[in-house]
Parts: sequence; structure tokens; C-alpha cells
Amino acid sequence: MTMPRQGDLRVFGVSGLPEITPGDDLAALILTALGRQHERLTSRDVVVVTQKIVSKAEGQVIDLATVTPSSFAQHYAAAHDKDPRQIEVVLREAARIVRMDRGVLICQTRHGLICANAGVDRSNVPGEATVTLLPRDPDASARRLRAAWAATGVEVAVIISDTFGRPWRRGQTNVAIGATGIAPLHDYHGQTDAQGRPLRATSLAIIDELAATAELVMGKVAQVPVAVIRGYDYPHAEAAPGAAALVREAEQDLFR
Amino acid sequence: MTMPRQGDLRVFGVSGLPEITPGDDLAALILTALGRQHERLTSRDVVVVTQKIVSKAEGQVIDLATVTPSSFAQHYAAAHDKDPRQIEVVLREAARIVRMDRGVLICQTRHGLICANAGVDRSNVPGEATVTLLPRDPDASARRLRAAWAATGVEVAVIISDTFGRPWRRGQTNVAIGATGIAPLHDYHGQTDAQGRPLRATSLAIIDELAATAELVMGKVAQVPVAVIRGYDYPHAEAAPGAAALVREAEQDLFR
Repeated sequence: MTMPRQGDLRVFGVSGLPEITPGDDLAALILTALGRQHERLTSRDVVVVTQKIVSKAEGQVIDLATVTPSSFAQHYAAAHDKDPRQIEVVLREAARIVRMDRGVLICQTRHGLICANAGVDRSNVPGEATVTLLPRDPDASARRLRAAWAATGVEVAVIISDTFGRPWRRGQTNVAIGATGIAPLHDYHGQTDAQGRPLRATSLAIIDELAATAELVMGKVAQVPVAVIRGYDYPHAEAAPGAAALVREAEQDLFR
Repeated sequence: MTMPRQGDLRVFGVSGLPEITPGDDLAALILTALGRQHERLTSRDVVVVTQKIVSKAEGQVIDLATVTPSSFAQHYAAAHDKDPRQIEVVLREAARIVRMDRGVLICQTRHGLICANAGVDRSNVPGEATVTLLPRDPDASARRLRAAWAATGVEVAVIISDTFGRPWRRGQTNVAIGATGIAPLHDYHGQTDAQGRPLRATSLAIIDELAATAELVMGKVAQVPVAVIRGYDYPHAEAAPGAAALVREAEQDLFR
């Protein structure tokens, strides 16, 4: 069985969105920004949206002035020159502390994601002491965007991305924390190479590779929170779990 | 300081290469295959080449008939229904066994890369019992390709990619095991967001993101071992270490 050769991909960023606030209609704002670039979504596009603006639109924002840090948070913050209120929020977002070493706080979130500071972040948030949390259910966030665009007649895949570090390798990469309209894994299980032997790489995390691709046109300081990948012939999948399918179950993880 | 908005990227695969054998002039074969697609390299392209064909061209191929497995390899192979000769080659390629559990053999190679089976692979190799090893020095492999193309007048970045699993997340993704002509990390250190606050993501592993992007047009069974990414405005870097810069030093790794 041979996949058809993929055609050319086109990848472009979407900029010019206003500062997002709770309750904003992100789907509509993205279409407006696209229109100003003389672009529009087309069916089979993959639309990658950075977590930050999704969290802001969903009100996943905390004013640190309202947070009373626990004694544990205060001690840790003092030892590592951090804001104890922000540490408190991180601990509240964490289901499990994976590593707490050398000033790095790596947590597993309720979604099962393992990342620094449980995804709590102060950058690109207006206000003196405001942080964003990850979306409550990033797959559901993706589904809402997809549904809003489907209502305008275009059937796209939607990926919610965030930037995570990883063990063993320096540097961070974009990964998918939410997804819909696309199978999260491209499974080659049971397929063979040109010589008829089973393939070593049996399951490609294509939504992570698409999120990484999007980062190339997003950047961190250029205010490009959305990217469109056009021409990728992906396997459609409507149903949940979306990106939650990439969370490795504890009993299958050799690196807890 | 603001990065200019990235323009559109174009990503396309290069197919139609012959079966690669030791001593083949890979740089020339890739140009020929491009020509048959009515394409050519242009300066500032990023050319991603899969490890498999680099290893074949460099003769990093072992006929298992020549391998005598150690007693350790025999025991492990018997317990996990593997070829003891292939396990022997894996052990010879490994500088350190990271995990040996549930039939999975995760090794650190001499390059510092951590991956399943130390990169030893039987798929997409002709012959009854032949395996490929990783290139001896993938950054040097990248530099040789870049130099060959530079001699034809085009200055490109070259990335050698392989497909690795990772802790915590299901599925594999393409990563860069060799690179030249491009800074491996895009460092945002000291830069600030639109509100003047330090950025959380300070160092993006852009060569890994480019390798992941390439995988989208490569596939595993479609015989597309090369991809070209055009339009990415990357920071040029000539000198070593290339992809070796992404190897996290042991003392900085919380997940050995």
C-alpha cells in the first residue's frame, strides 16, 4: 500500500488580530484578519491557533492580585526568585509534579500534558500581574472553532498549539494540545516498506508536526498567533479525543 | 525588537531517487531528481534529507550475516523475539542504554542522540538481512551536501532528519540529527513580548521544527527521502556544531 505523494504545502501566518479578551469571537476575528490579508479559509486547510489567544478568549486568565500563595508556594518562590502567587497558580493547575529541580517546575496538567509551569504563562498578557492558564479542554476549543467555520461552509482541521520543552534535546518546539477534524496519528501499522518489511516508524504524530510547522511562521514576538497549512492531504477524523490521543498512558510511559 | 513577519513557506518533496548504494553522489542524485520534477534548489532553501539515504551513501550498512551476537544479545533477543545479530549491532552502536524495558531498547548513541535501537534500522534496506546505522557524523554529512551544492552556486541550509519517539507523548516525529548553514536554535533570550515582559519560550529548536515540516511531505512508504522548504527566513550559521547543539548535556538533563 502506497500513500499518494503529497503535493506542495503552503504555510502562512495570520496577523493583525486585536488584543483578545474574554468572550471574544475568535473564529470571526480570525476570518476578519485573514480577509485583511486578502486570504480566506478553504476546506481541507489545517488552521493552527496558538493556545495563548484561545485561553484569553475563554477567560482562562488569572489576576495574581486575587491569589493567596500557600506556604509551599512561598518557600519555593523565595528559593528560586519567583512570584509566589504565580507558583501558587502553577500548583493549582498541576495534577502531578514531574520534576522540581534547579528552579524548573515541570508538571503534568489535568489534561495529562507534561510541560513547564503547568502551562501557566505571563508573557504576552496585558496587565501588571496577569497570567494565562491552558484552555480547560483544548480539544473542545478546537471543535468550537471548527464548528464556527463549518457554519460558513468550510471544513478545516483545527489544531491548538503550545510551545513545550522536551527531555534530552535542547530547545522548545510547538506541539498540539488540541485538535479536531484530523486523525492525530498517522498509523503505518501493518504497512511495509518497498522491500516488504514492516516499517520501524509505525505511528507519526502528524498534529505535532503540523504545530511545529506553524511555529515557523508564527514566531514569539511577531504577533502572529494563527497559521494556515494548505495542501496537506490528512486523514479526516471528526470524533474526540483529538490531541488527547497523544497523551501516553502512565503504564506505557518509561519516562515518568 | 520585532522579527519581520515570515512570508509564505512552500514545502515540497523530492522523489524518484534510485536505490542508494555506498559511494553514490547523493548531492548530484538529488539535483537530478529535482530536475525531473522541473525544480531546482535556490539559495536560502532548507533541504531536509532523511538519514536513511545518507547512511546508505556513506556505507553505514551492515550485513547481519557478518555479525556474531554476544551472549547478552542472544538472551535479550530470545526473550523479546528479536534477531540476536540485530541486537548485537544495536549494542555496538550504543554508548549507553537508557531504558531496556517491555521489549523496547532505548539507547544513547555516540552522537548523544537518544532513540530506539540506537538508530539501527532494517526497514527500507534491500537484502535479506541488512541494517542501516546512523551516519557517523550527521553534521559533517550535512556540511558535505551543502558544500557540493554551494559549488553549483546555491547556498542552502541542510538538515539530516530521522524519526524518533519521545517520552510522554504518543507517536513519533521527525527531528534533526545533522544540520549546517542554519542556526539550530532561534534564541529569543533577552527579547520581550508586546508588553515588554520576558518571553517564556526563549529558545526554539527550529531545525527540529523544519525536520517535522519535511516529514509531512515525505511519508514513510512513498519513497520521498528529501524535502525542500522555501521561504523560511532563518538565521544563517556556517560553523559546527549544527544539530549536535541540540543534545542536552547530561548535567542539564532532568530525564536521564
